[in-house]
Parts: sequence; structure tokens; C-alpha cells
Amino acid sequence: MFPKNAWYVAATADELNAKPLGRMICGERIVFFRGLENRVAALEDFCPHRGAPLSLGFVKEGRLVCGYHGLEMGCEGKTLGMPGQRVQGFPAIRSYPVEERYGFIWVWPGEAGLADTNTIPVQDWYGNPEWAFGGGLYHINCDYRLMVDNLMDLTHETYVHANSIGQREIDETPCKTAVDGDRVVTSRFMSSVEPPPFWQLALRGNHLADDVLVDRWQVCRFSPPSNVMIEVGVAHLGHDGYNAPDEHKVSSIVTDFITPETETSIWYFWGMARKFKPDDEALTAAIREGQAKIFSEDLEMLERQQKNLTLWPQRKLLKLNIDTGGIQSRKVIDRWLVAEGQTPETNA
Amino acid sequence: MFPKNAWYVAATADELNAKPLGRMICGERIVFFRGLENRVAALEDFCPHRGAPLSLGFVKEGRLVCGYHGLEMGCEGKTLGMPGQRVQGFPAIRSYPVEERYGFIWVWPGEAGLADTNTIPVQDWYGNPEWAFGGGLYHINCDYRLMVDNLMDLTHETYVHANSIGQREIDETPCKTAVDGDRVVTSRFMSSVEPPPFWQLALRGNHLADDVLVDRWQVCRFSPPSNVMIEVGVAHLGHDGYNAPDEHKVSSIVTDFITPETETSIWYFWGMARKFKPDDEALTAAIREGQAKIFSEDLEMLERQQKNLTLWPQRKLLKLNIDTGGIQSRKVIDRWLVAEGQTPETNA
Amino acid sequence: MFPKNAWYVAATADELNAKPLGRMICGERIVFFRGLENRVAALEDFCPHRGAPLSLGFVKEGRLVCGYHGLEMGCEGKTLGMPGQRVQGFPAIRSYPVEERYGFIWVWPGEAGLADTNTIPVQDWYGNPEWAFGGGLYHINCDYRLMVDNLMDLTHETYVHANSIGQREIDETPCKTAVDGDRVVTSRFMSSVEPPPFWQLALRGNHLADDVLVDRWQVCRFSPPSNVMIEVGVAHLGHDGYNAPDEHKVSSIVTDFITPETETSIWYFWGMARKFKPDDEALTAAIREGQAKIFSEDLEMLERQQKNLTLWPQRKLLKLNIDTGGIQSRKVIDRWLVAEGQTPETNA
Repeated sequence: MFPKNAWYVAATADELNAKPLGRMICGERIVFFRGLENRVAALEDFCPHRGAPLSLGFVKEGRLVCGYHGLEMGCEGKTLGMPGQRVQGFPAIRSYPVEERYGFIWVWPGEAGLADTNTIPVQDWYGNPEWAFGGGLYHINCDYRLMVDNLMDLTHETYVHANSIGQREIDETPCKTAVDGDRVVTSRFMSSVEPPPFWQLALRGNHLADDVLVDRWQVCRFSPPSNVMIEVGVAHLGHDGYNAPDEHKVSSIVTDFITPETETSIWYFWGMARKFKPDDEALTAAIREGQAKIFSEDLEMLERQQKNLTLWPQRKLLKLNIDTGGIQSRKVIDRWLVAEGQTPETNA
Repeated sequence: MFPKNAWYVAATADELNAKPLGRMICGERIVFFRGLENRVAALEDFCPHRGAPLSLGFVKEGRLVCGYHGLEMGCEGKTLGMPGQRVQGFPAIRSYPVEERYGFIWVWPGEAGLADTNTIPVQDWYGNPEWAFGGGLYHINCDYRLMVDNLMDLTHETYVHANSIGQREIDETPCKTAVDGDRVVTSRFMSSVEPPPFWQLALRGNHLADDVLVDRWQVCRFSPPSNVMIEVGVAHLGHDGYNAPDEHKVSSIVTDFITPETETSIWYFWGMARKFKPDDEALTAAIREGQAKIFSEDLEMLERQQKNLTLWPQRKLLKLNIDTGGIQSRKVIDRWLVAEGQTPETNA
Repeated sequence: MFPKNAWYVAATADELNAKPLGRMICGERIVFFRGLENRVAALEDFCPHRGAPLSLGFVKEGRLVCGYHGLEMGCEGKTLGMPGQRVQGFPAIRSYPVEERYGFIWVWPGEAGLADTNTIPVQDWYGNPEWAFGGGLYHINCDYRLMVDNLMDLTHETYVHANSIGQREIDETPCKTAVDGDRVVTSRFMSSVEPPPFWQLALRGNHLADDVLVDRWQVCRFSPPSNVMIEVGVAHLGHDGYNAPDEHKVSSIVTDFITPETETSIWYFWGMARKFKPDDEALTAAIREGQAKIFSEDLEMLERQQKNLTLWPQRKLLKLNIDTGGIQSRKVIDRWLVAEGQTPETNA
């Protein structure tokens, strides 16, 4: 159960090259391809002729050619031709609003008339030479909301990521959640802690001492349908923490775009945008590798959690203070579902 | 949904040796074995004693012995003995009409009383020293009719088999379909074309120039329940094409026996009988290898097409001129289904 | 369909070390762990906080700590703490009666109030220095009663285990079945036979001639819910067979604890306790390896038998003399099912 009238990340821009890409988004089987001038198009992945997946075809002169019998499909879903056949009367197949922006392909799986590209979440850092970005994609068999919960409550770092970003002080420092319309922010500020291994790596990457006490912060920002941007960082003690000048801290934005594939599976686009040493590609690679490992630690937990919830569908989960961020985020999602005429489940 | 009162190829003759063979045919789990004098028998693959699959057993003195407790089964499905036990009263299990002919094991999964071995489709080339044959077996997860469609419309060669037998002129040359009772014939004759790589191989194999223009033909002959024999060949230009004398052409019959395993999976027995250089075993192997590669290119397309049709069951497919052969073949199948009391699906 | 008010082997004692173990028993997803002083506990494998499997966590000071957010669970299913959170009001999760005995972890998946550790089947040989034991665990996709049938009718040895313990005389020698309350005993005594390969190995292991005629016995003892202990052995001819003094025979108890995982899958704990050369560890290993190979031969047969029974649910199986042991055992199981308010299937 997911909002369909929303922009979701369908792919990274570099996943979509000369060949079409088939991917299920929110239960819709969609083919993405680049038409004339590399403009992205998104259509039902179903050739109107005999039902072959168009994603097995190829692109020729801006048209998507079916790989079975050569039907040529335009970017809006109209059949434009087929060698030796009359196809003018073919009904169009469904096309989806789609936009390439911020290094991603965004798709709107719901009612096309409601799509407004102005509502794609702005990524300030993108294209700014002071910033660098690295990221990746995981496929995970869980409800997308379990991943929202995961990211809006970082106490799990102490347990799931004990050897990289977890530390005792996360458990010990209460977090604060604020709701502003459809936005939910959960913040935690830790004072005078030892930087855990991942942050030691980042400090060294920015040529800062990694064996001194730091202030550390985590500001998780949820926006619907299922985006979580997390400001994270550490600053050498005595420089005003979160507000420290750049030369005393390392700070990043963890970007999480969570796209439902089905009710119980997701495409998880994770990444980290950082505002230090943006030209250091080895550092980008090292951070990306570290983050890939950390996020892979969540996979088994989330998939096994999903299996448990599927097995015990009637069980009510319990809600603690630390869950407030996830709970408030789910309330926003529920409002979006209701606005679309869907009836949210009562149990979460 | 398939006719059950029909002969289907269950196996190649050499698949069935001293060991029994278990295979599902038209939804029936069947064990095939060779009894006395190598005569083939076909029974339910279910030991009446405790339900073990008889195909895990062995053959001894013409009887199929269950590999679990030694029950001995006769070729007609009667229990003939069991060490130390009284089994005379055991009810017989089902036996199926079965016949070894033309290098294949044919089985009749429907009403036994209606089976007439005279209706097994004659294979003229078989046993004729002027002909050679090579073939193979693929298991494909698709409705058997998708394979009939595939073979009765060869325009797909241009796209799916672009590097072997496909060529632009297939698209450009209209085909003609004729129906004669239960038989459907779709023909395409191309004049003055370059032979594509597979036919160059065949020309060389017959010691003919492969770098000259040829006439090329494809005559697809459907007969129910799901057999498609395709006369294919090329002749050097100026020798009357299809009717050219043997020394100026290479011609073959592509044999396709399509046996439903379930509603959405098939055993696909493909092969090629050729009337040139029959004793050249290296040529037989080279042609077989080429054909195996070509036919393997259809697998992904057919399986993905099936998945799409399963996902969108309500979608009507569209029918073009090129689909006439498949459509007419499906009409024949539908008549057979009605004759058996089945109700064909309206959508194809 | 299995009795739930019964002790089942859930694991071998050495499977459960410092880490918790998740395993489904009789349809219940259970986490096993060792609390203070290594005492075993068994709980629902479901964290009451967010539904994560507790088996992904770890044990700390006798508590099971959830690996997701650190909830601490006591051995009785009560939440005892969580860093920084108030969890006193959490409802308890289900705990299961559990007992470590005879080298196994026994669990009672039914009504806890009915569990009495005195009903765990006594293993006389355990802890006795005159005996040695080796065993293993197989997961098999079949109804647990198919394995009971298998073990209560050893005529299958002639077919399934032809190269190790099977021999013609098993088929030829009738067995005798006796029922005493809930216990079923099927016996077969063979006189003056050649020892098959496995028994030759055992004879040599006990420094006895392996090329002479022997008396051989098999006494299969079923007790509910699904335990089968089989006295097996061979004695040199002329020493009174089963009653021969130890120096003229090799004798063992095959131990079979069959634990349903689901309706159609089992955890099969097999082993062999022997009363000769108990200190010869190489012999223990050789016997264990031989038995592992023998029992693995049953796997395919049982899984394929299960598939057949699932495909033909309406088919009645037939009952022969050799099946009496299994049939009587199933009658006991049915009485237990009825006593729990379950309605046994009529077909077996």
C-alpha cells in the first residue's frame, strides 16, 4: 500500500543508457528508455501487438522497437510503425510522467494529470562543485515503510552497525521529533563522544585528527512519499558542533530514496553527499564502500522482519519514544493514501 | 488448455533407455519405460502401494519395479507381484497409449479408447537414406500456443535471430496463409536476397557458393494439436527457387513438436531434417549447433511474454496480417478443444 | 497435522552455543538460547517492539538482546529492559517449555501447562560408558508420518539401500507387529544370512570376522509423537542371534527423532548408539558416515513421494502386511490428535 500520485526514483541516470530498462515500480511494469536527444520516456512494458516486454527491444532513432516483431513505439505510447504492417489504428499503451533530474530518473506511477515536476524534492547539493556524491542501489524484500522506520530511528546503529557508526551514546541520547505539515524531522545531538570507525575515516579524509572527542549529530528529514535525507556529521569538540565552521568538521547528507516495487519489496537508492574534499575521488570511493557495507547490514534484518510480519499479520507492534519519527512519517503516508482514496492498514 | 485426445511427443527415443523416465505431459505425471523386447509403456507415475514415483524404480524382466518397496508393475498398469506380499487385489493404475515411431516416443494423454496410431503425423524423411536429422529438446515456461504463434510467423527472425537467419527482406515480403481443414500453411517466398549466415553455412555444407544471391522460402505447416513443420531453403538465383533441382539448393524441414507440460510450460522438441549431404556427420553437428543457438534465442522472449500475459490477463492482443498463420492455427486448436468439451479462452 | 502437546527434539545440544538459534517447530517460529548457567530457553522468534526475529540478536548476561534496537528479553518472554526506553508495560511474548536432555534440546510446542519432563523418552544408553553415539540432522520436505512409515517398514532397505544394508532376505522374512498401548513394535529376525556391507564394517570394527554367516535382527519401536528406536544387529551364527553374548555380535540402537517443521517438512535427527568398542572414535566416525549416506538415500524418495501425494490428494494408499507397523503407529498418532481436539485425515 503506497501512494501512487508521487514522484519516485526509478533508476540512477547512468543505469539508463542506449538500452531500454525494464523495472517494476509500485506494482507497474514499466520500460524506461532514452528517445531523441536522450530524453527519458516511460511506458508500460507490454507491446500492444503480442504482449512481449518492450524492454527486450532496442532504441532506434528515438523510437523503442519491440525485439519480437519490430513494432515501433513512440515516447508517448503511440505505435508509430512496423515493417510491412498497418498499425495506425493500434490503441496507445500507457505512458508515465518521467523526469531526469539530480542524477536520477523520476517516475510518477499514478494519475498522469496530477504530475508536477516542481514537486520533485530539490537536491541542493547536486551540481554544486563544493559537494561530492557517491551512492548505490539495493533491492530488498520488505515493505517500504520498514525502511522509513529504519532511517527515522537511528538507535539501530548501535546494534546493526556496531562496528562502523554505532556507539553507546546513540542509545543514551534522546532524540527529538518535530512535525511540520508533511515533513517530519528527528534529531539527535551527542556531545563529547569518540568518533566511531566510519567517522574516523571521514575525519582523516578531511585531514582532521580522528583520535579526539567530537560532537556528533543526526538530523533525519522525512518527506513523502518515502524520502529520507539525513544530515550527519562530527565536529571537533569546542567548535559549536552542528554549527561548527567547515574546517573543524566533516558533514554529509545521507540520501535515501525508497521506491516500492511491490507491497513487500523495494528499490533502495542510497547515497552520501558530502561538503568536504569534493575532488578526492579515492575518498568518494572509500566512503561509498563503507556506506555500502553499512547499509548491507540492514538487508537481512529488514527481510526477516518482513517475513515475521507476514507470518503474524494480526500482531500489533509497540511504539516507543525512539519510534516517533517513523510513526509520524507513517501518519503522513496515511494521509496521502487517504487523499488517493486508499484505506491505510490500522496496524503498523 | 490443450487437447488431450491427441498424440504428443513425450521424449526422443534415445532418452528412454534401460532406466524409466518420469515426465509430466499435459498435466499428467507419467512414467515411461521399456518392457519386454524394448516395447515402450506409459503409466501414471504413482505406485499404488504408497504413492512413490515409479520413475525412481528400475526395469527387471519387462516389469517396472518400484524403487521403494519392490512392487512389480506390468506394462498395462497391473500389479504383478511383490516379494512376500499378496498384491493380486491391487486396482490397476492408469496406462496411456504410447508408441515409438520416427525416433520419438508418442503418448496420448486423453481417452485411451480414442487413440489411433494411424493419426501420428507421418514423417516422410524418417528412415530415408537421402535425409539426415539432428535435433534437441528445450523446456520453456510458456503456453504452447505462444510457440505455435512464434513458428507460424517468422517475421520475428529479423529481430530475435538477427545474426543467423534474420534479414530485412522477411519483413518486406508479405506472407500468404491458406487453411485446409485442420491444416494451416503460411508461406513466404523471397527473391534475390543475400543468404544470411546460417544459410551460408548450409550452402558451404552442400559445396555451393555462399556469396551469391539466392531465392529463399519458408513454408510453415501447422497440424493439430501443435505440430509445425517448416520447409525452409535457399536456391542459387535463376534455378526456379523452391522448385530448383537439388544440386542448386539447400533445403530442409524444420520439425517442431510442442508438447504442453502444464498450462504455461512446454517440452519443445526441435530439429532439422535435410536432404543434402546426409552422410556428413560433421555437417549434421554444425547445423544442429546452429539451430540450437537460434532456438535458444526464443526462450527468454517467450518466457517473458508469458509472464506479461499472466500479469495482464485481461489485455486483448492485436492481430496483424503476419499473425494470420497463428490465428488460424489457434482456431483449429479451439475446434479440437470444443470437440473434447473444453471451452476455449476468448482472448488470444 | 501433528500433535502439539508433545516433546519434540528441536536441536542437538551442540547446535545451541553462545548464539541464539531460530527454528520452526510444528509451525511455530521459535528462538532457542542459553540463559544464565547455560539453561536453555525457548521463545517466540518475534521481538514485541517491531517484529524483528530475536534469533538475529545475541545473548548478554543471560538475556536475549534484539539485534535491531537492543530490547532485552528474559527467559520467560518478559521484556526486561531497553537502553533509554520505558518497556515495563510490554506484554510478554510466548515462551515454550524446553529441556536439555540426552544431548538434545526438547521443546513442547503445545499447551505449556501440560508439559511434563518426565514424559521425555528415556535414552538408557546416554551417559553410559559402555555405549558410544554418533548422529546427524537432515531437513526433508515430507509429512513426518512418511518418515515414520519408512522406519516402521524396513523392507525398503532392499531397494533404497541396496548397497549397504539391503538384502534379499529382508523381503523374504516376514515381520511381526505388536501393539502395546501407545507403543508399536515391528520385528524381523533373519537366520543364517550373509552380512551386507554396512554390517561387515561393523563386525570388523568390533574385531569379528565379517565373512561368515550371521543371524540378523531389526526391532523397530515406535512411540508417539514420532520417535522410532530400532534395535539392529548381527551375531555370528550359532550364538543365539539377538540374545548372543556381546563378544559374538555387533548391536546398536538406531535413534530417530522426527520433528515436524510444517505439515510437509521435517527436522530428522538420526543417530546410532552402539554397545561395542565405545572408545573407538574412528569407528564412531566411520559408522556415522555410513549411516549419513544410507539415510540420505531416503531423502529423494520421501520428497518425491510427498509431491505425488500432494498432487493426488484424493488417492487412497494401499496397505500390505509390511505396512502394519506404520499403520498402527498412525493409529496412535490419530488418537493423540483426537485427544487434542484435532480431526485426523481419513486417508493415509
